[in-house]
Amino acid sequence: MFRLIIRPVLLLFSKNKELVNKLYPILGFIPSRVALYEIAFIHKSSSVTLPDGEVVNNERLEFLGDAILDAVIADYLFRRFPENDEGFLTKMRSKMVKRKHLNLLAYHIGFKQLVISQSSVAKDSKHLYGNAFEAMIGAIYLDRGYQCTYKFIERIIDKYVNIEKLKQIDSDYKSRLIEWAQKEKQEIIFESKVGVNSQIKHPHFVCHILLSNAEIGRGTGNSKKEAEQKASKMSLEKLLA
Amino acid sequence: MFRLIIRPVLLLFSKNKELVNKLYPILGFIPSRVALYEIAFIHKSSSVTLPDGEVVNNERLEFLGDAILDAVIADYLFRRFPENDEGFLTKMRSKMVKRKHLNLLAYHIGFKQLVISQSSVAKDSKHLYGNAFEAMIGAIYLDRGYQCTYKFIERIIDKYVNIEKLKQIDSDYKSRLIEWAQKEKQEIIFESKVGVNSQIKHPHFVCHILLSNAEIGRGTGNSKKEAEQKASKMSLEKLLA
Repeated sequence: MFRLIIRPVLLLFSKNKELVNKLYPILGFIPSRVALYEIAFIHKSSSVTLPDGEVVNNERLEFLGDAILDAVIADYLFRRFPENDEGFLTKMRSKMVKRKHLNLLAYHIGFKQLVISQSSVAKDSKHLYGNAFEAMIGAIYLDRGYQCTYKFIERIIDKYVNIEKLKQIDSDYKSRLIEWAQKEKQEIIFESKVGVNSQIKHPHFVCHILLSNAEIGRGTGNSKKEAEQKASKMSLEKLLA
Repeated sequence: MFRLIIRPVLLLFSKNKELVNKLYPILGFIPSRVALYEIAFIHKSSSVTLPDGEVVNNERLEFLGDAILDAVIADYLFRRFPENDEGFLTKMRSKMVKRKHLNLLAYHIGFKQLVISQSSVAKDSKHLYGNAFEAMIGAIYLDRGYQCTYKFIERIIDKYVNIEKLKQIDSDYKSRLIEWAQKEKQEIIFESKVGVNSQIKHPHFVCHILLSNAEIGRGTGNSKKEAEQKASKMSLEKLLA
């Protein structure tokens, strides 16, 4: 009760009242160290340079939050699926923390009005909201500790994540292709290629998949994983047609 | 005081007294749920099958402990290096949790007498001790919670890890090669190849590195990373000779 009564009164005098008002419905508690949350929503395209030259954006908090999120989800899955092996747990976690999944989650939670970024950059950066979500996890952890962060993430999962549906999804085409090869006793060769030079800020990846020396799939992308997934998808479509 | 007096008395009647005696000097506390630690030291080569058919080994605990260790080290580095960016933090963590590093750490701590495995398998599995170390982190977390695990890991780091020395080591040949290419405005191509079939339990990776269409490095290994590191090292030796 003490906290519930005193905190809102203090907020009337807070410079960060607007941010706190936006955060409260998301967090379910009134943050103490509001500056941390402020930083969590600063995308590097809108980095702030302090008088002493220090550049501030959400990347350090994202590093921390990413690790805390992974740990909490590992614990969550460990307890929820006591009968499943670590292969299943690893797969489930990777589906839950996938950038695409986190972006959508952060968008639903209402991050669009919170993240500060240069709109032109933001348009290109599809991971903007997912990254800010992780940075916010880092802020909660520093502000309130591990237990509170755990409860926050658990609440978000229960509200927004359909675990049973995620269990069914198998969008990992590479794993499925490898399983196919093992079952059919065929050898599949993955060939990846990436060029690195000073001009290319975002290296371009290419993946070719060969079966008996003939190409059955090919994919390109901004990451090795993306190129491999596309090439594996094409291969599976050909093999299972 | 209550805990200090009562627990050792209880242990006199414990079936796990021997394990607890070995664990106490490592943990610095007397574990409550000893069975968890017992599981943490069972390598999959010595899996135990329970009457209900459940197979027990340390792999699930390793999944959990790996994530908790990553989170604690992220927090530790975040606080210890307030001025460094997330690139530095990521690199430092990857050096600290590298299997080779964890294996050595676990060996020094005295894991050799704790891990139960089939010696022939153990000989092949170089990650035996590092994996058991992570599984033990998972056991501590379940037994004592996050704060206690944090303190345990912090104590291990302070006692066994030379952070300043780790900062100096730059064994990431691939990053160094990419930095070289960017500085010299040259394009480097990484070509990786891996074959997957039912016969090969441990796929064999090959990496070729090209500069102006000529091969400057080549490496093989049991992981893509190992093959890339070897090929990058060879390339750097050629380029910087």
